[in-house]
Amino acid sequence: IDPSHICISSGVTAVLDLFFFATCDPGDGCLIPAPYFPAFDNDMNIRNEVAPLPVQPKDTHTYIPTVAEMDAAVDEAAKRNVRARVLLITNPGNPLGTLYPEATLKLLLWAVRREMHVLSDEIYANSKFGYVAQNAVEEKLLSPEMVAEFVHTAYGMSKDFGMNGFRVGCLHTKNGDLLNLWQNMGMFAAVSNDTQHALAVMLQDDTFVDFYVEENKRRLKNSYNLLTSAFTSVKLNYMPACAAMFCWLDLRSLLTECTFEAERALWKEILEDCKVLLTPGEACHYAEPGFFRVCYASMPPEHLQVACTRLTSFVEKKRRKRKLSSA
Amino acid sequence: IDPSHICISSGVTAVLDLFFFATCDPGDGCLIPAPYFPAFDNDMNIRNEVAPLPVQPKDTHTYIPTVAEMDAAVDEAAKRNVRARVLLITNPGNPLGTLYPEATLKLLLWAVRREMHVLSDEIYANSKFGYVAQNAVEEKLLSPEMVAEFVHTAYGMSKDFGMNGFRVGCLHTKNGDLLNLWQNMGMFAAVSNDTQHALAVMLQDDTFVDFYVEENKRRLKNSYNLLTSAFTSVKLNYMPACAAMFCWLDLRSLLTECTFEAERALWKEILEDCKVLLTPGEACHYAEPGFFRVCYASMPPEHLQVACTRLTSFVEKKRRKRKLSSA
Repeated sequence: IDPSHICISSGVTAVLDLFFFATCDPGDGCLIPAPYFPAFDNDMNIRNEVAPLPVQPKDTHTYIPTVAEMDAAVDEAAKRNVRARVLLITNPGNPLGTLYPEATLKLLLWAVRREMHVLSDEIYANSKFGYVAQNAVEEKLLSPEMVAEFVHTAYGMSKDFGMNGFRVGCLHTKNGDLLNLWQNMGMFAAVSNDTQHALAVMLQDDTFVDFYVEENKRRLKNSYNLLTSAFTSVKLNYMPACAAMFCWLDLRSLLTECTFEAERALWKEILEDCKVLLTPGEACHYAEPGFFRVCYASMPPEHLQVACTRLTSFVEKKRRKRKLSSA
Repeated sequence: IDPSHICISSGVTAVLDLFFFATCDPGDGCLIPAPYFPAFDNDMNIRNEVAPLPVQPKDTHTYIPTVAEMDAAVDEAAKRNVRARVLLITNPGNPLGTLYPEATLKLLLWAVRREMHVLSDEIYANSKFGYVAQNAVEEKLLSPEMVAEFVHTAYGMSKDFGMNGFRVGCLHTKNGDLLNLWQNMGMFAAVSNDTQHALAVMLQDDTFVDFYVEENKRRLKNSYNLLTSAFTSVKLNYMPACAAMFCWLDLRSLLTECTFEAERALWKEILEDCKVLLTPGEACHYAEPGFFRVCYASMPPEHLQVACTRLTSFVEKKRRKRKLSSA
């Protein structure tokens, strides 16, 4: 990677803000496969007035939209006079904890052929703990010129290194206009020299970084296994993850009815009964009620175990009640 | 000062960016008494599309515009469909190195009565080395409600403490809308926790801060005296300063003609002949050619002495040449 292709700002939030300012006009739209990270809406909308355009994939095995679904989302937006200018993906995904497999990068080709910018938010890039297929695809499908103009990657220190307070995000791009824009407007969200120095010292310590990344993966995998074993023990379905710190849990069977009202009620019940805070699928803009994001990385395994026990007891209690009431 | 009235961003540049976003619509204007800091134009214009409206004061003794001059600037802007929404002053001033005397704070009253926001950039507030009259005026002229809504102060660590790489700026305001806005949009330009911690440790050390501020003033005053003695020795006029790190120098007598072309030529000649870099008045949006900002704080006195000797020799050489050619 050529260092001159990297722009640095005070967090990926700041990177997104400038990126959307640079690539969109107010009233334009950004396609995002759902479910997706709740805060993206704010990042693109509040200052830049860019509308999030969630794409709901029918394939709940991969959660990857088809080209037809993408086309339909573009057409639907166009009817409301919203022009889709950007495709935003997160890879590894939040809330899914999965990686885009190579075959699905046809989405990228689909977007770039329409002269749409593609931003891949790879903030969990060093937190891949499961099996990961080769992912170097760009050059095969696209000309280097198209990649340079339209394909961009965001990265930050907050997740892989647990350094969200450090406010360091970067954009990797070969697009000359974007690089020029950062030269000047990057000053509106610059990273302090002392933080840059501390990070440079840390990142140059290969022994530490290698150890940290491996140990982080090991612990994530342990926690993920602990969590999913608990889900399996009570026959709960979830999306198998291989990266990041999330698990996408299917609690549709516990809903009193198939509505977001019921989803919110269940979310509240779990919070009050188990003292476990999940993210409802509605907040992730997922169209079908009953799914929840479980974030499992911010606690030691023994605490996670307590949370799991509470959750599984809760599930069993709900099922017993339902059986009784239907008996 | 109530800490809840302070918003922090990554540098005063970032503070200005959000402030203008909050207070202006694209196409609005901001009044600024000239001469003024060259970078303000970029800060307000490039992202927020706010037009700088320089006000040229006739009174070159104080460089403070009269109410009539302010009114004229507002009317002139209105003719171009630009609405003046903000009055931006720097106090202490850049490039003048002076303070707004109490009497002139009627400008503030003038602005607030027109429901114009007033932003006072006080980034040199702790670099006052000359005689400074009492400056606490707001409450006398304005109601607390008007002050809370319309009067705001910017401060940063870059000048008084020489910490521009640290990217820490703040806005002091009692305006609830601005405070709310920063709660959310402040994340687009946040200051890293480690920088905040380092500064907190430093600023809590009263002994150090008191020593530093006093020593800084002492050295600024020494350098200022050294510089102005040199100017006096060759009978050059300058604006007497009492703060910051600038001196506004009148070199009109050296211009070949009263044009900005001649100003640029003289600037280039000084740069090449003396290896001394001044800021031409044109860059500070001053309407009359022949004035220059001298920044004297970034070098030890012995180097400043070298620069002064070169400058005074240059002035004498120019005068001799002129005498010869007119003889």
